[in-house]
Amino acid sequence: MNEVQNTKPIVGIIMGSDSDLPIMQAAADVLTGFGISFELTVVSAHRTPLRMVQYANSAKKRGLKIIIAGAGGAAHLPGMVASITSLPVIGVPIKSSNSIDGWDSVLSILQMPNGIPVATVALNGAKNAGILAASFIGAFDDTIGKKVEAFKQTLENEVLAKVSKLKTDGWQNQFD
Amino acid sequence: MNEVQNTKPIVGIIMGSDSDLPIMQAAADVLTGFGISFELTVVSAHRTPLRMVQYANSAKKRGLKIIIAGAGGAAHLPGMVASITSLPVIGVPIKSSNSIDGWDSVLSILQMPNGIPVATVALNGAKNAGILAASFIGAFDDTIGKKVEAFKQTLENEVLAKVSKLKTDGWQNQFD
Amino acid sequence: MNEVQNTKPIVGIIMGSDSDLPIMQAAADVLTGFGISFELTVVSAHRTPLRMVQYANSAKKRGLKIIIAGAGGAAHLPGMVASITSLPVIGVPIKSSNSIDGWDSVLSILQMPNGIPVATVALNGAKNAGILAASFIGAFDDTIGKKVEAFKQTLENEVLAKVSKLKTDGWQNQFD
Amino acid sequence: MNEVQNTKPIVGIIMGSDSDLPIMQAAADVLTGFGISFELTVVSAHRTPLRMVQYANSAKKRGLKIIIAGAGGAAHLPGMVASITSLPVIGVPIKSSNSIDGWDSVLSILQMPNGIPVATVALNGAKNAGILAASFIGAFDDTIGKKVEAFKQTLENEVLAKVSKLKTDGWQNQFD
Amino acid sequence: MNEVQNTKPIVGIIMGSDSDLPIMQAAADVLTGFGISFELTVVSAHRTPLRMVQYANSAKKRGLKIIIAGAGGAAHLPGMVASITSLPVIGVPIKSSNSIDGWDSVLSILQMPNGIPVATVALNGAKNAGILAASFIGAFDDTIGKKVEAFKQTLENEVLAKVSKLKTDGWQNQFD
Amino acid sequence: MNEVQNTKPIVGIIMGSDSDLPIMQAAADVLTGFGISFELTVVSAHRTPLRMVQYANSAKKRGLKIIIAGAGGAAHLPGMVASITSLPVIGVPIKSSNSIDGWDSVLSILQMPNGIPVATVALNGAKNAGILAASFIGAFDDTIGKKVEAFKQTLENEVLAKVSKLKTDGWQNQFD
Amino acid sequence: MNEVQNTKPIVGIIMGSDSDLPIMQAAADVLTGFGISFELTVVSAHRTPLRMVQYANSAKKRGLKIIIAGAGGAAHLPGMVASITSLPVIGVPIKSSNSIDGWDSVLSILQMPNGIPVATVALNGAKNAGILAASFIGAFDDTIGKKVEAFKQTLENEVLAKVSKLKTDGWQNQFD
Amino acid sequence: MNEVQNTKPIVGIIMGSDSDLPIMQAAADVLTGFGISFELTVVSAHRTPLRMVQYANSAKKRGLKIIIAGAGGAAHLPGMVASITSLPVIGVPIKSSNSIDGWDSVLSILQMPNGIPVATVALNGAKNAGILAASFIGAFDDTIGKKVEAFKQTLENEVLAKVSKLKTDGWQNQFD
Repeated sequence: MNEVQNTKPIVGIIMGSDSDLPIMQAAADVLTGFGISFELTVVSAHRTPLRMVQYANSAKKRGLKIIIAGAGGAAHLPGMVASITSLPVIGVPIKSSNSIDGWDSVLSILQMPNGIPVATVALNGAKNAGILAASFIGAFDDTIGKKVEAFKQTLENEVLAKVSKLKTDGWQNQFD
Repeated sequence: MNEVQNTKPIVGIIMGSDSDLPIMQAAADVLTGFGISFELTVVSAHRTPLRMVQYANSAKKRGLKIIIAGAGGAAHLPGMVASITSLPVIGVPIKSSNSIDGWDSVLSILQMPNGIPVATVALNGAKNAGILAASFIGAFDDTIGKKVEAFKQTLENEVLAKVSKLKTDGWQNQFD
Repeated sequence: MNEVQNTKPIVGIIMGSDSDLPIMQAAADVLTGFGISFELTVVSAHRTPLRMVQYANSAKKRGLKIIIAGAGGAAHLPGMVASITSLPVIGVPIKSSNSIDGWDSVLSILQMPNGIPVATVALNGAKNAGILAASFIGAFDDTIGKKVEAFKQTLENEVLAKVSKLKTDGWQNQFD
Repeated sequence: MNEVQNTKPIVGIIMGSDSDLPIMQAAADVLTGFGISFELTVVSAHRTPLRMVQYANSAKKRGLKIIIAGAGGAAHLPGMVASITSLPVIGVPIKSSNSIDGWDSVLSILQMPNGIPVATVALNGAKNAGILAASFIGAFDDTIGKKVEAFKQTLENEVLAKVSKLKTDGWQNQFD
Repeated sequence: MNEVQNTKPIVGIIMGSDSDLPIMQAAADVLTGFGISFELTVVSAHRTPLRMVQYANSAKKRGLKIIIAGAGGAAHLPGMVASITSLPVIGVPIKSSNSIDGWDSVLSILQMPNGIPVATVALNGAKNAGILAASFIGAFDDTIGKKVEAFKQTLENEVLAKVSKLKTDGWQNQFD
Repeated sequence: MNEVQNTKPIVGIIMGSDSDLPIMQAAADVLTGFGISFELTVVSAHRTPLRMVQYANSAKKRGLKIIIAGAGGAAHLPGMVASITSLPVIGVPIKSSNSIDGWDSVLSILQMPNGIPVATVALNGAKNAGILAASFIGAFDDTIGKKVEAFKQTLENEVLAKVSKLKTDGWQNQFD
Repeated sequence: MNEVQNTKPIVGIIMGSDSDLPIMQAAADVLTGFGISFELTVVSAHRTPLRMVQYANSAKKRGLKIIIAGAGGAAHLPGMVASITSLPVIGVPIKSSNSIDGWDSVLSILQMPNGIPVATVALNGAKNAGILAASFIGAFDDTIGKKVEAFKQTLENEVLAKVSKLKTDGWQNQFD
Repeated sequence: MNEVQNTKPIVGIIMGSDSDLPIMQAAADVLTGFGISFELTVVSAHRTPLRMVQYANSAKKRGLKIIIAGAGGAAHLPGMVASITSLPVIGVPIKSSNSIDGWDSVLSILQMPNGIPVATVALNGAKNAGILAASFIGAFDDTIGKKVEAFKQTLENEVLAKVSKLKTDGWQNQFD
């Protein structure tokens, strides 16, 4: 799942704490599936602010195209990274313990002021962050673009298989 | 502001109603500022569902790279367009009249299921949607990438000018 | 519970995912109880948008009178089906995993714009969706109408039985 | 607007207070437009509870098919009427003064217990309540059914007219 | 706990469902403790509306002074009883299953319109409903009034015992 | 409106700030209407804590039966008074400036811990606080009890007058 | 109001935008009243991240003891400054335009992770931020400590003056 | 963990109930770690109001510099103590049982009126309350100030150790 990647990463996946890894791994898995090279590490806005500044500052020079940042509670990592780099940042609100039902991380990431956007996905939506990165890359890279199209087809096929199973299970409909 | 564009658009700006134009125009203005060609029209998920399907279906073929979709209330336009096209979609929640404080449009756009992400920006954040589109384009197009960097510098300079004005107004600080 | 129905269905029960079946089955059970023929299948607004358009488009022609649609998160299925068909749509907000306490599905279904209503029931209220469908049918069909009246009498009787049991258990009141 | 109707009403529009009339009139206007006969009066669950019981009890006998009930704050009227009659009830949450942003009326109407559904529409959504009533009637009455279809076409046409106007105003798109 | 009471009840404890009894029993226990005679039964606003009307209508004649009413979800029982009787009603919001975090019952009970108050206590606060009834009775009945004062002293003593235990456990403070 | 009262007050109306008087006066007006003697003053939990302790401590000795306390924001006055006196306390949440939509005062007053209830009314519901006090007094004092019944009749009559006016205005219904 | 201060500042007041000055000035006014020297400037976490790092990094060396930071929306300034400096930070949530009722700034400032606290005050509570700073300083500096005590006495006196005025206006109470 | 302290305490840790101790102990542990002497006891605003007044009144005289107060539900303890003493108060909202998701305690502590601030930390944030107290003390006491700096360095080191572990686990990044 986290085998060594030899290609130069174009997506950086960062998270505020290693306790966010079980959620954020879904982004890594998606990128692996699309064959998009990425790096993954912990960068805490609050506990390693200088590391965060350096990470964000060097990201473009190091060849990254997109940064995916996940954080919980008063989640400042995505917005702060977005304030430092000119690369696009995708933010993943994480429902951490002692969160107020996830509202804190959602609002801390979503409600960025004019000038410094963060592309926010759903609560715990790391998988969607990976897909979103792929679709942005795919808009400019035909190989990936076709994989995204194929992925959407897969989603459809999975549903259609379930439709069939429902019929087998005895649920009738006159549509299919 | 809305002069005829001769270049083939690469960003599509759509909105659920022409009453959303005063908010969504900020996205158009930003793209104009970055020299990114765009198209702008009304596509209602609820009142013109077939137009929406056709718009989303043809978007990639017509050369669009990114779609910015704004909507209020039970805002289905961004998510539905994202379900049809493999292009990335940026969603702008709009605080319409009879909205429940904007929560309805925010949650209808943000909380997309696994597989179909929408890159959501802040409530009424059309300007940020434009900047986000530019930063994604800039990640793959150096000319735009440099403009995004310059734009960030402008933001900083505007703040620094205000810092100076505060001093002139008599507010002291020993930092500057 | 899901035995083959021979009668032509007049209610369509659809849901965004087969994981919604444990909730949505309550609607099927109610309709079975009322002797109202129905069909049941999975139609995902986001993963099978074309299937959704075709389902909604053909619903009236196929003889359906009412559609019950359940979905969670950014729940677009009920509203999108309502935008395509002229049949009435009853929406069931489902509290899915990673939902923000159900607020997302409630607001995504309830807050439809003027012109395209969805008859929304309580969170996870699939049973009530079935009863609501029966009461609308019953308003125009005396056989069903009488069953709905009888059903309400059953509700009352169940409560009265509990009233008796409380007395037996030793809780006194001077009213009964 | 409120001319005398000669036909026997099949929809009853009730509201908790005459101060709700500016909102609820939209339901009356829609039904008038569809040629559906209705009655309209004030029935307060809290200030005239017996009137409410009698209204709900007699509704079916008097020939009503559907009741539309609007109320604000701790809005009990729709649910209480639904508890007494076996007719279907459409509930309209109204954002009254001293409401807590409308949440009180939305939740008081929507979150009905199993057995007693209310078909809830959006906050202040009286227009949609009228359309919903028409679509339920239209499912069983072809004349109305065709009017509902025509109404949906009107919605689409209005949007398309705005699409044209945007082009005239100079906003380009390559889709239309 | 629920032994037969011989005295004529002056407090009526009602609840919308027998599933509310585990919560509402706390009110009964408190009243038993204060030696205040009460009755307890199930009265459902939605499933037994006529029983509710009759209960509320006869309450004063039957000698009740105060009604304690508990309900969950779209909790109409306390407010509807208050609309029918001129007796004071204490409302207990109950966090039932499928409740939206208790907000629905709290707002349905608290936000009553001008003219028809309900004395609302905290979510699941049946114990406090009993104490509140006792304190209102105690304001007009010295025997009960003194018991309420004694009860408050008990609360204080319980805390002081815990203060001592903390010291014994080794937590120092210079105040005690 | 605030004429000198000669009778010994049995209800104390207090509020955290004189800026709350425009809201709280409604409680005074209601009590005046019922002929219930009251006192009214400002007692701030936060700015005059000792005054609050003394007010609450002396309330019963001074002959008060019920205290009505209104406050906004982090509204501690009703709960703190309830913690000191054994008299019943009715709390009025007030939507002050910088309030977070009134949620702060509602929750600060409503969510009292076991042992120390506050009878909470709706946001800005001072009128209802007065009516609630009258109904508790009326439960033990027949003169007031009959006035409360008469008041409820007035509420009903006002609605019935509006019902007539609607008919005069041309809105038909077959019920009246 | 913003006269030149000659003393070396020990409190730094910063805000994300000069549009926050009308709110944040209240903190400056309070400190002026207490004779506590301060500096005031604009430091934007998002638009001038390096300035923010440098400000926070140099704060202690420059002699500051406490930093008061105000920001709106996804308010990262207080938390980020707290992550860089070891000085205590008081955070002021500001209800900016397009805020979701202030919830975004409140939660972004309050819900800091373990290790990096921010002392949060009420929405728009800049005056309280100043008083809080004074009370912390006063805990270690007797001159300021006595001023804080005197200030509290002033608060009490203001209320007592209003108590008198109510009596003059004819509102009676038997307590004063 | 709770060994006898010989030094005169300068921080008072209080909580509304001994059931809050499992949360509040984290504040004690932090202070122990910083070598800051403290006392810890239970003081209930609602069940021991006089104890609370006396505790707050004597706090400064007894040598305390800062009070940390934790409470749940309608959490009045922090604000009431702040109203009585001129010492700074740090408030810890606690998510107790029957809390409405913690919103009640957060808003009851945070939204204090002008004049009486409480330095509020995150829900259940007792650890941060301890660190905040240390950082305020450290601003005026170099020994503690240096420990706070060292503590922040520890936080950073812990993250860096996790960064290394991620690499060891096979997650690559080109930044470290």
